[in-house]
Amino acid sequence: MSENSETLATRPRRLEQIERWDIDTDVAIVGFGGAGACAAIEASDAGAVVCIFESASASGGSTALSSAEIYMGGSGGTRVQNACGYRDTTEAMFDFLMAAQGELADEARIRAYCEGSLGHFDWLVSLGAKYKDSEYRQRAIMATTDDCLLYTGNEKAWPFRELAAPCPRGHNLQVEGDHGGPMLMGVLTANVERRPIRVEYDARALTLIADADGAVHGLVARIDGQERNVRARRGVILCAGGFAMNRAMLATHAPRLLASGNIPIGNPGDTGAGIRMGQGVGAALLHMSEGFITLPFYPPASLTYGIFVNAQAQRFINEDVYHARLAHHALRQLGRAIFLIVSHDDYQRPAFLNAPVAGTGETIEELAAEIGLDPAMLRHTVDYYNAHAARGEDPLFHKSPEWLKPLAPPYAALDCTPGHGALYPYFTLGGLDTLPTGEVLTLDKRPIPGLYAAGRTACGVPRTAAGYASGMSVGDATFFGRVAGRSAARRGRGPG
Amino acid sequence: MSENSETLATRPRRLEQIERWDIDTDVAIVGFGGAGACAAIEASDAGAVVCIFESASASGGSTALSSAEIYMGGSGGTRVQNACGYRDTTEAMFDFLMAAQGELADEARIRAYCEGSLGHFDWLVSLGAKYKDSEYRQRAIMATTDDCLLYTGNEKAWPFRELAAPCPRGHNLQVEGDHGGPMLMGVLTANVERRPIRVEYDARALTLIADADGAVHGLVARIDGQERNVRARRGVILCAGGFAMNRAMLATHAPRLLASGNIPIGNPGDTGAGIRMGQGVGAALLHMSEGFITLPFYPPASLTYGIFVNAQAQRFINEDVYHARLAHHALRQLGRAIFLIVSHDDYQRPAFLNAPVAGTGETIEELAAEIGLDPAMLRHTVDYYNAHAARGEDPLFHKSPEWLKPLAPPYAALDCTPGHGALYPYFTLGGLDTLPTGEVLTLDKRPIPGLYAAGRTACGVPRTAAGYASGMSVGDATFFGRVAGRSAARRGRGPG
Repeated sequence: MSENSETLATRPRRLEQIERWDIDTDVAIVGFGGAGACAAIEASDAGAVVCIFESASASGGSTALSSAEIYMGGSGGTRVQNACGYRDTTEAMFDFLMAAQGELADEARIRAYCEGSLGHFDWLVSLGAKYKDSEYRQRAIMATTDDCLLYTGNEKAWPFRELAAPCPRGHNLQVEGDHGGPMLMGVLTANVERRPIRVEYDARALTLIADADGAVHGLVARIDGQERNVRARRGVILCAGGFAMNRAMLATHAPRLLASGNIPIGNPGDTGAGIRMGQGVGAALLHMSEGFITLPFYPPASLTYGIFVNAQAQRFINEDVYHARLAHHALRQLGRAIFLIVSHDDYQRPAFLNAPVAGTGETIEELAAEIGLDPAMLRHTVDYYNAHAARGEDPLFHKSPEWLKPLAPPYAALDCTPGHGALYPYFTLGGLDTLPTGEVLTLDKRPIPGLYAAGRTACGVPRTAAGYASGMSVGDATFFGRVAGRSAARRGRGPG
Repeated sequence: MSENSETLATRPRRLEQIERWDIDTDVAIVGFGGAGACAAIEASDAGAVVCIFESASASGGSTALSSAEIYMGGSGGTRVQNACGYRDTTEAMFDFLMAAQGELADEARIRAYCEGSLGHFDWLVSLGAKYKDSEYRQRAIMATTDDCLLYTGNEKAWPFRELAAPCPRGHNLQVEGDHGGPMLMGVLTANVERRPIRVEYDARALTLIADADGAVHGLVARIDGQERNVRARRGVILCAGGFAMNRAMLATHAPRLLASGNIPIGNPGDTGAGIRMGQGVGAALLHMSEGFITLPFYPPASLTYGIFVNAQAQRFINEDVYHARLAHHALRQLGRAIFLIVSHDDYQRPAFLNAPVAGTGETIEELAAEIGLDPAMLRHTVDYYNAHAARGEDPLFHKSPEWLKPLAPPYAALDCTPGHGALYPYFTLGGLDTLPTGEVLTLDKRPIPGLYAAGRTACGVPRTAAGYASGMSVGDATFFGRVAGRSAARRGRGPG
């Protein structure tokens, strides 16, 4: 482990021990990814002097590595939703997000997100983000054309379609291929650069500076090999990402994620440093065991016609769910084996899955023998599924009729058992406990004066793979990054 | 919420602000349950001046409310194991506990527990704990006779029986009925009282006293309405229980536990106060979402002949598992419905379960209709189970042959769906991160000088309902309470 991942001292530097200030600013932001950029823009636009400290040599963070889809809607619908014929309501969006997050839902945060989402779309457009008034109609992990609007979660899948009126809310930038991340960060970086915002690259935030009462007054950053004391008169905003790249933190807090996931998603700076700086001044951590973990079994969408079975040759979910929800439930099955069984006619090589073909068969019995499942159970599972699928029904898991079709020989089985080769990408969803304002909270829910967090340094809207949708994390990071920027900028200046 | 549960300030009192010491001791112990009592005895026997602060008016804690079975074995076996014809090995015990805790296992802690377990038995006996050289052979939640040795976990259940040689390790005190808790705390309290240990009852520990470097020097307790500054020259040991009684903490950290559990287990003092005092001086929290949660479907053991099915009328586990493992997996099923289906001949009213009889039937189809399950699926599940059970086989979940018997009409179904009346008792397993020595750790795994924790204030050996066994929590609390007592007593005195 590098010193900044496992062993960074989280204890703050004491204010009374600071002998000089090397940099003086109103708002200091740690991290120049999506959250940090949005926080900087808003804080600057609110009149604050802003300085960003980014450990890498350029802006980007994990947002630049993502597709940068953003989950937006409500309030009648975004311009794109309307152009594509959808009228979205805030309540439908709220109901969906609440159901998706289940017991872990943060109602106040979700409410704020839904009520402000249309404004967030307009703000991004005002900065120069381009969204085409078009829909990407395929079931996919991301849009690979420059089309914009797509379903990115479980909106149309049981049980969510019964809990909230489905509406597509994933907004893909107007760019061909999976290049939304660089495009979004390009737009945000240009906006930072045209404002009087100071950016220190190759500047590693080491620790916070706090007074005896725990209030945060700045941070210590290492720049050009020198420790620099940064005074942040209004606040420090931690936007330093999650901890997907810190195996020691994963082993401590999210061992189940580490045991099944094999591809951490993010940039090398996702070491949890921001989380641990917050913890050093008494911040509470929230849902540290939770993560996004997925089994990217589509595209091609035709694999959705297949069925997933567990070690007992039983189905366990409606296969038209979002890929991370599928992974979440696959990893909860007793016995590790997970297979995707598909008709030859629907089989195409998965784009990302990398699961070995464990067996093929002209009959279910032949297939079962090859993959080591009980043939009678698999026969029953397939017969039962087929009989109902032929009528457009799935009485067990309510897969949508559009994805119901009897399996037909020859069959193939993809081995999705963890450890057998299939990709299980993951990143962390736990982080600092914050108010929807971005204020970081102690365990007894008191805001820590002068400290804010956004992006995956905070525990945000998305808190479980079971209810994740693409665009939730970048959506949360950019939306609540903005809020944190405004909150910090107006601190000590009274309401406004 | 009372002030000591939700809103207690976790921030420590600053050492330099302490103007006088009201009580001066070597070791201060917060909580006089099983962990605190054992810590006090060992610290005193190691030559330390010891003072216990207990918020209630008597000793006991949650240990006194438990059955006080203790999970012990290894090293050839305890006196009782040997008398009953068992030779237990440390490796078998270690392998079992490692498998039981899975990804969450703390290897060093489990190793220490297994290697010291025989000595722990002998120590308890030396204090006066009485264990009869006899075995309680029924499958039960606790022994209700004065017999001692019983299987209290998943040792004989798949997959654990394939991973470690099964051996009974639950040790029940020699007392009729479920009265082990008061008996154990009686023995421990008598041992405290015959030593020069000061006990302050009705003494609520409010916060720790720490210096600027974070080292702990004592605590502030409220006694007779007055705040008293307690100097603890060698250390403070937090043995203040878990947070099962603090709904705000549960909602924050363990929302899934709170959503399904309906009976918190513990004493009113289990408010997480010790955890939050530790957190105030920078202690890391570990696995806060984890808990013991159970569905006490036996006794009578005959219900183990039944099968559990989920909303899809599919079995999901071998029913001969420990009751908490069953609950753990029941709560992971998609769709909330959970039923226990049993032959009339095997049905007796469950002792604790309280689940309503959702339906009865002369046929499976009749039963399915009454309970709202798909009749064809339930028919297949029962037919498949019966055909194999008749041969002593369970190819899907490997229930032991001793519990395999075809279901026969008339049938009954008990509704174990969460929220429908069945008991789901629970308590918390997350807590402060500690070394096996009891030293409390920061997030970057540095011990906090002068701070120790044991019992459910710490995250101990048991970390998941999936692998729990009765006797693990009191075993962990008493064993690591002792270790913490010794660690604190010798602090600052060099090795020894």
